Amino acid sequence: MDVNLIPWIGVGASLLAILFALYLTSWLMGRPAGTEKMQSISKAVQEGAMAYLARQYKTIAVVGVIVAVALFLALDWQTAFAFVVGAFFSGLCGFIGMSVSTRSNARVAEAAKQGLSYGLNVSFKAGTVTGMMCVGLALLGLSGVFIAFYDPNNVSQAVHALVGLGFGGSLIALFARIGGGIFTKSADVGADLVGKVEAGIPEDDPRNPATIADNVGDNVGDCAGMAADLFETYAVTAVGAMLLGYLIFGGALEYILYPVALGAVAIVASIIGVFFVRLGGSTNIMSALYKGVWVSAILALIGFYPITAWMLGDVTMFFAAIVGVVATVLIMYITDYYTSKNYRPVRSIAHASQSGHGTNIITGLSVGMESAIPPTLMIVAGILAAYYVGGGGGEGVYAIGIASMAMLSMCGMIVALDSYGPVTDNAGGIAEMADLPPEVRNVTDALDAVGNTTKAVTKGYAIGSAALAAIVLFADYVNALKKASAGAGAAAEYVFKLGDPLVLAGLFIGGAVVFMFSSLANGAVGRAAFSVVEEVRRQFREIPGIMEGTAKPEYGRCVDIVTKRALKEMVVPGLIPVVTVLLVGFILGPLALGGVLIGVIVVGIYMACFQNNAGGAWDNAKKWIEEGMYGGKGSEAHKAAVTGDTVGDPLKDTAGPAVNPVIKVVNVVALLMVPLIFHIVR
Amino acid sequence: MDVNLIPWIGVGASLLAILFALYLTSWLMGRPAGTEKMQSISKAVQEGAMAYLARQYKTIAVVGVIVAVALFLALDWQTAFAFVVGAFFSGLCGFIGMSVSTRSNARVAEAAKQGLSYGLNVSFKAGTVTGMMCVGLALLGLSGVFIAFYDPNNVSQAVHALVGLGFGGSLIALFARIGGGIFTKSADVGADLVGKVEAGIPEDDPRNPATIADNVGDNVGDCAGMAADLFETYAVTAVGAMLLGYLIFGGALEYILYPVALGAVAIVASIIGVFFVRLGGSTNIMSALYKGVWVSAILALIGFYPITAWMLGDVTMFFAAIVGVVATVLIMYITDYYTSKNYRPVRSIAHASQSGHGTNIITGLSVGMESAIPPTLMIVAGILAAYYVGGGGGEGVYAIGIASMAMLSMCGMIVALDSYGPVTDNAGGIAEMADLPPEVRNVTDALDAVGNTTKAVTKGYAIGSAALAAIVLFADYVNALKKASAGAGAAAEYVFKLGDPLVLAGLFIGGAVVFMFSSLANGAVGRAAFSVVEEVRRQFREIPGIMEGTAKPEYGRCVDIVTKRALKEMVVPGLIPVVTVLLVGFILGPLALGGVLIGVIVVGIYMACFQNNAGGAWDNAKKWIEEGMYGGKGSEAHKAAVTGDTVGDPLKDTAGPAVNPVIKVVNVVALLMVPLIFHIVR
Repeated sequence: MDVNLIPWIGVGASLLAILFALYLTSWLMGRPAGTEKMQSISKAVQEGAMAYLARQYKTIAVVGVIVAVALFLALDWQTAFAFVVGAFFSGLCGFIGMSVSTRSNARVAEAAKQGLSYGLNVSFKAGTVTGMMCVGLALLGLSGVFIAFYDPNNVSQAVHALVGLGFGGSLIALFARIGGGIFTKSADVGADLVGKVEAGIPEDDPRNPATIADNVGDNVGDCAGMAADLFETYAVTAVGAMLLGYLIFGGALEYILYPVALGAVAIVASIIGVFFVRLGGSTNIMSALYKGVWVSAILALIGFYPITAWMLGDVTMFFAAIVGVVATVLIMYITDYYTSKNYRPVRSIAHASQSGHGTNIITGLSVGMESAIPPTLMIVAGILAAYYVGGGGGEGVYAIGIASMAMLSMCGMIVALDSYGPVTDNAGGIAEMADLPPEVRNVTDALDAVGNTTKAVTKGYAIGSAALAAIVLFADYVNALKKASAGAGAAAEYVFKLGDPLVLAGLFIGGAVVFMFSSLANGAVGRAAFSVVEEVRRQFREIPGIMEGTAKPEYGRCVDIVTKRALKEMVVPGLIPVVTVLLVGFILGPLALGGVLIGVIVVGIYMACFQNNAGGAWDNAKKWIEEGMYGGKGSEAHKAAVTGDTVGDPLKDTAGPAVNPVIKVVNVVALLMVPLIFHIVR
Repeated sequence: MDVNLIPWIGVGASLLAILFALYLTSWLMGRPAGTEKMQSISKAVQEGAMAYLARQYKTIAVVGVIVAVALFLALDWQTAFAFVVGAFFSGLCGFIGMSVSTRSNARVAEAAKQGLSYGLNVSFKAGTVTGMMCVGLALLGLSGVFIAFYDPNNVSQAVHALVGLGFGGSLIALFARIGGGIFTKSADVGADLVGKVEAGIPEDDPRNPATIADNVGDNVGDCAGMAADLFETYAVTAVGAMLLGYLIFGGALEYILYPVALGAVAIVASIIGVFFVRLGGSTNIMSALYKGVWVSAILALIGFYPITAWMLGDVTMFFAAIVGVVATVLIMYITDYYTSKNYRPVRSIAHASQSGHGTNIITGLSVGMESAIPPTLMIVAGILAAYYVGGGGGEGVYAIGIASMAMLSMCGMIVALDSYGPVTDNAGGIAEMADLPPEVRNVTDALDAVGNTTKAVTKGYAIGSAALAAIVLFADYVNALKKASAGAGAAAEYVFKLGDPLVLAGLFIGGAVVFMFSSLANGAVGRAAFSVVEEVRRQFREIPGIMEGTAKPEYGRCVDIVTKRALKEMVVPGLIPVVTVLLVGFILGPLALGGVLIGVIVVGIYMACFQNNAGGAWDNAKKWIEEGMYGGKGSEAHKAAVTGDTVGDPLKDTAGPAVNPVIKVVNVVALLMVPLIFHIVR
């Protein structure tokens, strides 16, 4: 078999994933969608979500077109074209993920009437559609762009175009993560602060004017934003590894295409794994989901062995791939430990809630900070293991790339785990609003609680893989710089010494990107939630009969408020990483820019894990109290836990997860800048 | 004049500072100490504080003796001896600072009866005693150790002993910061949660069983811990610069001793500056304090010029010193902006409190994250400016050291600003408990509000200078490594390349130190505060008549609880930095250890500023509401603001400030390890 066939195998595997997703969609659409009331609520959420996504994409499109034109003028049309493909696919991933989710929520609520097992089956299939579309579109983009621009006499053209693809995906994912995150969390926080805390009505109560906005938010944030983000994570990681294959191994095709082959194998493994997610007789949802992950992981590894032996002639890189798969599984269990209500961390937060809001928050912050350490040390171990397994030097770094690609190859399954969460969350909302019997809500609540943990797992996975990918992208940057400076006839080689003040300046500036971004994202939610609170208070005050259920709240007003705020507040944080890279690159030069690339990942992995896990832990500490601990619902401890949950919302669903695309954008923009630096500075 | 005289000039200047402090003390002790009730409360606080400090020092002494013996066995007796001197002086600084503070609190309350101006005068003089003792003892230690171990034929002996001095100071300061921080904040948080939030009684109300513990805490944390910390900041910064002078300039005495000369000049400037802190006719306390800083800064610079010209023959390093002084002033204004109630950040938190606890916390976190950026960027600018002013290369790095030394030379004045805060805080407590008229409390409250900001300023200053010092210490480490590896006949030179997986691993591990440490410190406060809450609730329940004022609460029980918890919980976080350095150095080797040094500062500066400033901003947002904004005291917004204040307490007074000695300990231990590494690994 010819190595040239690999991109076509990639296309084949990605089409398989897409077809599987379409099959599941048609199966899902065949399920009953429940009563008329359920359908009408579902439709309201669906329309609200679509309306927002359309406006968000319009705003992003403006940025996208400007960037595409800039890329065309500054670089070449191939990169600009690939950028558009990446941006479009990333957006498409988000659109499909959200579509399926909003169309499945009522069906899951209906399925939950038949019990936990069937409820899990339908909701997990809905999640799988998003997972398969993510990996399918990503691999299709990678293979397609490579095929389109591959020229045996000029391999660099195709490889460089791929960087454009990654940039397109990342930039759109970044905006989608922030915009969606601000929308969903300001609606959620606003709804909770007035509804639960002030008026004392339950979550998703139809009397709460912000409840539709809240449910719409789950879709635009947790579905659309997340799907776009995982698409870019996959794409950029693969591009990083492929580019390194090109730079290190002198353009040898097998090293460039090996990551694509791994992706293709893993798609098949993930599809098989999906069928192993079932409860059987047990009620342990988490272990049912983990079964699917284990099967996919083992099958993928079995498939990786022969493909490695065949493509590369020896199996060194296979061991690097094992590192990546093991890292995925370990990160899953670590995050589970810190965010599930079965273990010490979450329970310590619940316990601290007894002495008030203050100790709940302090303990949550402490748990969040601690939770950032084990995944990071695991990534450190992964980096060192892959590097030495790969034999050190350039090959060692390539092995890190392969570990990260192997990690990402599990993406289909991991995204499925994640996306099933918001679907059940919405299903619970519909059950509440449509007055379904409490048994239904119990089923959706049980699914949703696990969903909180799986959502945290995906974020940990994304940021962990980002750390590996960033190391690879930094190596790409250093090698590309070497090539470009040699090409430009520059005498001095760039050595990134840790003690060099420019490099140090870059490290600190990289940290600033993460902190500025997190501050803006959290602040935006605080401000927008404040507006929602004021609007809900106004409606309670001015529309008589809301609390008695005789008058309908004006749901549209709240949707409108969060839409406007989200679109307005997403632009600045979205541009920060791009602008910082341009400024540092042109003013302080390539050494400082290298520092930025590493600074953003070192600070980023901690801040992302801290924010993601603290939020997940607070949420589940509240759920743990709601199960009757420390006085249960309505107790003082519960009130404190609700505060914690509210604080965790923007951390875990706005600022925290968006750090991942921030890291990618910074790295990819730096890569694209390399040729420009040599025309302008030094 | 002979350069050899410089250490003696250092001794002279330090004795001048100590004499000035003694003079101020005797003046203070001559002030009237108020009514019998005031004196008895003051005495209770004093005894509680002394009892705790004695126990804390006993615990620390155990660690200290073990380390001293280890240093003697592993290195030499000179280093071990200097370590003991540093440890003793650091502890002495804390002891004196606390002593003066506890003896002055009633006197300040009494002085406040005569109005703001006299209240400021007395409280600022009390703060000045601590400031002068800090710089005096530090310069005395540096000069004394140098004189004791200086041998013209073996300059390295004295210089290396100085590293031991720095280590002694840092290690004790680290424990004092955490132990004192846990004590003060668990008492404070516990007292507030039951007293203010549950029982609705004011701060420092004598009916609150935790109120004496709270006031004791202010002294052991904010006075003793802070003074020890600033002592080590000064000492380690000076040692870093002196060592670099030795390593870079081939042992030329003038470069080794130049930092001592700067310190001596600045002491004189600070003493003069103290006399410029007076209100005159105005009520602007902050600007009265800033006047003192400006005068000291300008006089110091005027003095630096001739001494530079004389010692070094050219004035290049004078410009580096300007960078340091400018950095001090800028950091002061930046921190003021983020933590004073006169500006947007604090007011935005107060505003967000209207929609509840959740938005108060979210906004505070957002403000805290943002606040970490300007000081860091300023430090970046300082690093680059000093480096290029110094001519780049080794001289450039030495210039960074001089900038940091110039920054620290202002230490006497800055510590005075800081220490006056807790004195007024205590004075307010005494006024409350001794039923003094409300005008007195108004005066102490006005002084205390500014104290919140000046406390934040000192922390920003300490961590900012730590960033500069860490760069210098890293350069020391690299140069020491080069020397040692050449001496050991090692062939390969250590190059700390940013892309090297070992260096990267170190960077991530450095971040882990900061996060683990912060998590433990905050968690300890959460747990200990929980115990205080339970105890206070028990007393309210079981001792009838407390709330009516007919029965006296058992104050001692609360003091006992926090004492035990603080001593128990300080050990692990205190050992983390030391143990991490040893493990990384021996297992992963010097390259990874270099990464740790930089990782700890890059992540540390952000986490320190974030935690310090968020806490300060929350505190003053509460005070801003208490002035009548958004419903004032007792409103829902005020309750939310109290929660924010409570959350901010451990961040700003336990975890945040202790990051500074953590950074120092990590760097100094690494320096001490260099010779050991070559016997054991590689």
